[in-house]
Amino acid sequence: MTIPIARQYPPASGGTEFDGLRLVDGTLERFFSDGMDRADRLGAGYAGLWRALRSAARGGKRVRPALVLAAYTGLGGPDPAPAAPVAAAFELLHTALVLHDDVIDRDFKRRGVPNLAGVYRARAAGQGMSLEEAAHRGQSAAIIAGDLALTGAYRLIAGAELAADLRLTLLDELDSAVFASAGGELLDVEFSGTPEQPSLQEVLRMSRLKTAVYSFEAPLRAGALMAGASADALRTVGTAGRCIGTAYQLVDDLLGMFGDEAETGKSTTGDLAEGKCTPLIAYARLCPEWEQLAELLGGTPTRQDAARARRLLEQCGAREYVEDLAECYASRARAALAESALPEALVADLESVLERAVQRRR
Amino acid sequence: MTIPIARQYPPASGGTEFDGLRLVDGTLERFFSDGMDRADRLGAGYAGLWRALRSAARGGKRVRPALVLAAYTGLGGPDPAPAAPVAAAFELLHTALVLHDDVIDRDFKRRGVPNLAGVYRARAAGQGMSLEEAAHRGQSAAIIAGDLALTGAYRLIAGAELAADLRLTLLDELDSAVFASAGGELLDVEFSGTPEQPSLQEVLRMSRLKTAVYSFEAPLRAGALMAGASADALRTVGTAGRCIGTAYQLVDDLLGMFGDEAETGKSTTGDLAEGKCTPLIAYARLCPEWEQLAELLGGTPTRQDAARARRLLEQCGAREYVEDLAECYASRARAALAESALPEALVADLESVLERAVQRRR
Repeated sequence: MTIPIARQYPPASGGTEFDGLRLVDGTLERFFSDGMDRADRLGAGYAGLWRALRSAARGGKRVRPALVLAAYTGLGGPDPAPAAPVAAAFELLHTALVLHDDVIDRDFKRRGVPNLAGVYRARAAGQGMSLEEAAHRGQSAAIIAGDLALTGAYRLIAGAELAADLRLTLLDELDSAVFASAGGELLDVEFSGTPEQPSLQEVLRMSRLKTAVYSFEAPLRAGALMAGASADALRTVGTAGRCIGTAYQLVDDLLGMFGDEAETGKSTTGDLAEGKCTPLIAYARLCPEWEQLAELLGGTPTRQDAARARRLLEQCGAREYVEDLAECYASRARAALAESALPEALVADLESVLERAVQRRR
Repeated sequence: MTIPIARQYPPASGGTEFDGLRLVDGTLERFFSDGMDRADRLGAGYAGLWRALRSAARGGKRVRPALVLAAYTGLGGPDPAPAAPVAAAFELLHTALVLHDDVIDRDFKRRGVPNLAGVYRARAAGQGMSLEEAAHRGQSAAIIAGDLALTGAYRLIAGAELAADLRLTLLDELDSAVFASAGGELLDVEFSGTPEQPSLQEVLRMSRLKTAVYSFEAPLRAGALMAGASADALRTVGTAGRCIGTAYQLVDDLLGMFGDEAETGKSTTGDLAEGKCTPLIAYARLCPEWEQLAELLGGTPTRQDAARARRLLEQCGAREYVEDLAECYASRARAALAESALPEALVADLESVLERAVQRRR
């Protein structure tokens, strides 16, 4: 878990995908400026919400669009231009899901800075509203902004310059991703704060549904579909995506507890304070150390509490178990790629995505 | 305001539209049962959310699908079958917006019975959760369910058996409706709880954006578009829809204050308690009676308070003003229809919709 990030964009396949990402940024920029222009006619406040939405979509690593384009170009897609709106749609989907997830998690920050709900909360509090009312206003703005991003994703695909039946297939793919994410989000909601605790398997399923499908599996499949890939290639990128995504989420869990706060921008007491049901916790629940650990969950854990929790999680074997599990999914992804008939450059690209996912430190 | 509802479905155009509404119900039923089947594979809880979503979409008056079909058949659309998914999409859009609006308004009931958030809140409270936590869980479920309904609307239109370019135009129409509703919802959020109060004009604009566009204007235009209507007919149904919708909203405001609770199923102290910024209130704010009225807003008004507020709203002329305004929009709609070159049966249908909108008592 300590090897530095091996490579950065542009990836192995060369310049095409990088050009594609510029096209994606252009598409998103047009989407937001069009929204702002139209909103401006309805009032300054509405244009402000669109501006805030654009900010929410900025600064991301464009992981999902990059995967769409990697699969597309890697499987012989000639011109990235028609693929760009589809790639951009997955970024908008991500923006929407993060906005609504933050409302559900009552988060007002993301990576240390106020998120959209946080910005609107601060503004309302500055106007003299009580903190509770201001928080609700912030969350209301985030619900509305999320709806705009979510429907924007459909609109971008519907308007892409692709054959009509392909657009429909891609909308189905987007829909499957939304369907999975909503199911995962609901499981996450159900797991929090209830006495009966989910099994490790249920926690893994939740995180796969909530994140891995829309972040890895669906973008790769969308790119492959646009390239006119064979059923076999489609299945392989789907399997690889699911395994990479699950490994990514497991590493996320590890970083949330054992990561370097300065690098991750995420407090290592956060998951503890929330009493978040992560794979680490689900494993630890089966161990004799659980009694001591349970005392440290929820409330407002100190740094000492967090350090103690880390020791207990190492002692009971939870850390090693989750590291092994991440490695196991990574191996499955590697095997799927190695045995596949996918073009070499695409295999290299996806291997690079995989290694960055499991070796990242933030 | 006391004439009984003049007519019910089926409307003047005869059986076609009624058949269409049965097709709409069939489309929605398939949408939900497909969702439940797919969700069931991911867990019983998720299938339960889909069931709750189906319940949320049931029992409605199907106003929006009826308008889509009225415009479609009235302008010569031959077969209601391909129009049904588009009509159903506007019902799903309504379901989605109501779900998210209830979260934003912190409502856990609709027409006297628990809404989706209320059902999930009650269940969580029954599992021993605090009322606050249970409320948040209810709202989380409603956010997720709303996302499923919202994206479902796009999916239904994208999958309709219509020419590809027509489907795109209809998706644009849906998108314009979402865009307007989101803008109206944001204005509504901004108007509540802030010291500077919106003008009457701003309140009217808010309610037009939030409801009239997606409920009347867009469904009529969608039906007209599918029938291949002329630009002129498209403009006329749009204008009529906007005016009918605005009149409808004004009547809604009146019923919320002066309606018969037994008929409306809505407490006449509700709008007062929320301190809701309705056209009645926006008008009254300009009058000398305002000082007395302001004392009755917010908090927990009694029936006596509500009766006193009603007297003050009559005394200052707010009631008459809003009644006149509703009548003014109704007249505009009548004029637009009378001067139009729309087929007679469609004009009769829309006049009937209009009269029911302004004469309704619930």
